[in-house]
Amino acid sequence: MANSTSGESVSERIVRVLEAFDVDRTALTTTEIGRRARLPSSTAHRLVGELIQTGLLERTAGGRVQLGLHLWEIAQRGSRALRLRQIALPYMERVQARLGEHTQLGVLERDEVLFLERLSHPQAVSNVTRVAGRLPLHASSSGLVLLAFGDEELQRRTLEAPLASYTPDTVTDPDALRALLARIRREGFVVAEGFVEPVSRGIAVPIRDARDRVIAALSVVVPRADPSAGPLEEVRAAGAAISRRVREGADPFASR
Amino acid sequence: MANSTSGESVSERIVRVLEAFDVDRTALTTTEIGRRARLPSSTAHRLVGELIQTGLLERTAGGRVQLGLHLWEIAQRGSRALRLRQIALPYMERVQARLGEHTQLGVLERDEVLFLERLSHPQAVSNVTRVAGRLPLHASSSGLVLLAFGDEELQRRTLEAPLASYTPDTVTDPDALRALLARIRREGFVVAEGFVEPVSRGIAVPIRDARDRVIAALSVVVPRADPSAGPLEEVRAAGAAISRRVREGADPFASR
Repeated sequence: MANSTSGESVSERIVRVLEAFDVDRTALTTTEIGRRARLPSSTAHRLVGELIQTGLLERTAGGRVQLGLHLWEIAQRGSRALRLRQIALPYMERVQARLGEHTQLGVLERDEVLFLERLSHPQAVSNVTRVAGRLPLHASSSGLVLLAFGDEELQRRTLEAPLASYTPDTVTDPDALRALLARIRREGFVVAEGFVEPVSRGIAVPIRDARDRVIAALSVVVPRADPSAGPLEEVRAAGAAISRRVREGADPFASR
Repeated sequence: MANSTSGESVSERIVRVLEAFDVDRTALTTTEIGRRARLPSSTAHRLVGELIQTGLLERTAGGRVQLGLHLWEIAQRGSRALRLRQIALPYMERVQARLGEHTQLGVLERDEVLFLERLSHPQAVSNVTRVAGRLPLHASSSGLVLLAFGDEELQRRTLEAPLASYTPDTVTDPDALRALLARIRREGFVVAEGFVEPVSRGIAVPIRDARDRVIAALSVVVPRADPSAGPLEEVRAAGAAISRRVREGADPFASR
């Protein structure tokens, strides 16, 4: 029942419908959804109708279609992203209050870093990260930490793929990147000087679980011109504290 | 292609699979998913397999199944919940820093209040709210604000349904509730003394959009024993500031 003549499952088509929306396109017509999801018009209309019924999509006041609050609700309710974020948030807020720049929490998702949270200040330095946004592993400080402590297969795939250059300082030479990853494993942090944007410095540390596996990266983005060692100390202390809370089995929801 | 012999769409079945997970059940076996989603075993196995392929579900290290980070990512990316939360968060953090209790942001979702955010303090008073959790409209301070400023049809449905009692102070008499809603519309806030838990006081105010429609409720939960008027003043000031930001074009529900 679930497969169309193209051999695709309905699940795949539904995911493509949901993926049609993003931060710059939060309300679409059904025609636009069909085009972005590469679906025949009749299929797009039927799936959109079904998804509105279930609450995963909603009609806007203007007659277009947007992601439903029920989708957000389902995703939040059972999500490990939310649990990790809730554990980390008080520590991130403290770092944020002291530095006044950007404080971020990222995890590995399909060979990229996916940001679960970002706290910022209106006057903070330039930073491309968004909540639920992604960056390549080799260019971002969070990604470099996740890559350094990731498995060999991940490192092989990343080093064999073309390494995009964002600034003249992005490390795109595989041998140089290998050396950087070894250094991150040895030192337990990375300071990425202008890898994503020339004016910014990313500093990241690993978050570890009870089995000492790296499950996330905590990072700050600060002005590159600032010579102070304070941000590195802050983020290392916060990373250690979050790892400790994770190891202790801290989960604001599990105890209820 | 999308309908089973039971007349249900595949979309409905997929949503039931995703709804099988919640804060207390974040990792399930496929058999448990099938039971909770009321699906035949073969259907559950096929849908779970498809959803793992798409990233909406993931296998845990222990061989069970959990919601995928990609589901969270899709839901966050295009979500009006996230946009409203991002506008409100700095103001919520200020209220939170001054009161040290619970600060919450809730919206109307299918006749209940759905909480988009909750900031808390480890020593704060008892509070049943969770991020992505729900409460009935008539019992919670946020819900009462959304009900008071909601449309007549919503009020009729709510007043005609049985009104659950959480404490002896929950307002469950329709006439008393009608009078309370009128007072909330007149005063622009509600102070709910022990409606959900005997030891706690909920205080909520509306958040309005550029067309003066109430789109959310900002609330704090403080100890009932505290006689101070400070929390009401804090939450009113923050609610006005958030509404102003929303009106200034940071409209979280406008399509971009």
